[in-house]
Amino acid sequence: MQRKNNMIHPAIILDHPQMGENIGAAARAMHNFGLSDLRIVAPRDGWPNQAAIQNAAGALDKFSPTVFETLPEALTDLHYVLATTARPRDMVKPVFTPEAAVTESRTRHTEGQKIGFLFGRERTGLENADLSHCHGIITIPTNPDFSSLNLGQSVLLMGYEWLKAEDQTPARDMSPGDSFPVTQDKLDEFLNRLIQELDNGAFFRAEGLRPTTERNIRNMFTRSDLTDQEVRTLQGMISALIRQKKPLE
Amino acid sequence: MQRKNNMIHPAIILDHPQMGENIGAAARAMHNFGLSDLRIVAPRDGWPNQAAIQNAAGALDKFSPTVFETLPEALTDLHYVLATTARPRDMVKPVFTPEAAVTESRTRHTEGQKIGFLFGRERTGLENADLSHCHGIITIPTNPDFSSLNLGQSVLLMGYEWLKAEDQTPARDMSPGDSFPVTQDKLDEFLNRLIQELDNGAFFRAEGLRPTTERNIRNMFTRSDLTDQEVRTLQGMISALIRQKKPLE
Repeated sequence: MQRKNNMIHPAIILDHPQMGENIGAAARAMHNFGLSDLRIVAPRDGWPNQAAIQNAAGALDKFSPTVFETLPEALTDLHYVLATTARPRDMVKPVFTPEAAVTESRTRHTEGQKIGFLFGRERTGLENADLSHCHGIITIPTNPDFSSLNLGQSVLLMGYEWLKAEDQTPARDMSPGDSFPVTQDKLDEFLNRLIQELDNGAFFRAEGLRPTTERNIRNMFTRSDLTDQEVRTLQGMISALIRQKKPLE
Repeated sequence: MQRKNNMIHPAIILDHPQMGENIGAAARAMHNFGLSDLRIVAPRDGWPNQAAIQNAAGALDKFSPTVFETLPEALTDLHYVLATTARPRDMVKPVFTPEAAVTESRTRHTEGQKIGFLFGRERTGLENADLSHCHGIITIPTNPDFSSLNLGQSVLLMGYEWLKAEDQTPARDMSPGDSFPVTQDKLDEFLNRLIQELDNGAFFRAEGLRPTTERNIRNMFTRSDLTDQEVRTLQGMISALIRQKKPLE
């Protein structure tokens, strides 16, 4: 039974998991979000488990779980353990949302503490005796009429929140494509040409409405955050359209 | 082909899904987070699909998907559609994190717009032609070495973010158990008695260290956020310990 002291990310502890498929889905979800310290307590079907390996989509080639006989053995080197479960009715524990649990755990992680997230067995979950080993509870908000998340789903959400907390991706960004937003002078050049050609085509029938109509046209194109390349395309479109132009009615 | 105008939550659109298992996992994840407007475009194995129903864990008894032949048909009544995919390299689109996508979508949803989240087929994902129907891109942050999320996982994360944005659960809360935090007077009564009994047992050998030691003991118990019931238990523990007391050495 090897302890993995070089694992810097939180340990994921599966207590008495039953279905190999679920162990595999949990391992896959861990790898999706960069976690690798998987600990399995008394898996019903033993270990290794073919169904787990098949369902892990390659994740179990990247790391191997450590298998323990009892829950306390799986926790010995950890400093702070949170259990995902429904809110317990007869026990005093702090209860966190997944996001707040990650905030608290990451603060402790930065201080050098080793963190564990504990997940109970399918259907019956964790017993109160198991929870007494934990510092707090994580309750995932779900539809009250259908709150059962399986093991893979629960591990996925905790891994997602863990990675998200260190993710530097801007919340909203522009995919640049091949091109950069157009400068105002190029946009104006296009809009002035467009309005000139519309005028040539007798588009502005009521001279009194012209300022409003012109403004609406300018707004429509300015709002679109056009790129340089797109404005060149629009210039080409005008050229094509006026080549086809028919005599005024 | 029925359009579900009474659906107030975002539509989940699966484009050309292949495995029934994945459709079922997506439906289950939707129901976990209170979504029900599932739209399937040209499922490879037709519809209904037994594997989907089995994997949905009952979710497909609660709502039925609408099946469409082409992607544009599945989007006709929507106002704002975001596609989950890797950042496209040759197309100009806003790119959101899941959380920012939900913020933007919920603002529009509040204004009465109908929202859709689009998910591509397994492995090959969405093509650029599909993306041209969408207003923006959602990219889920993952481990760069293992970024492939399956359909069920991706739908789960978007459903989770959607529900989380309206969830009122406090980020950190105390599960109350049967009891309420102790008041300071009861805690002091216990601590004073403890220190008295320790004194009787000649615990404080060096009188000069007594103030520091007393303060450390007070801190230890105050920090624990003890409840009324727990302090009563501690009082009983002192009574039991002093009943066993042995003559001083």
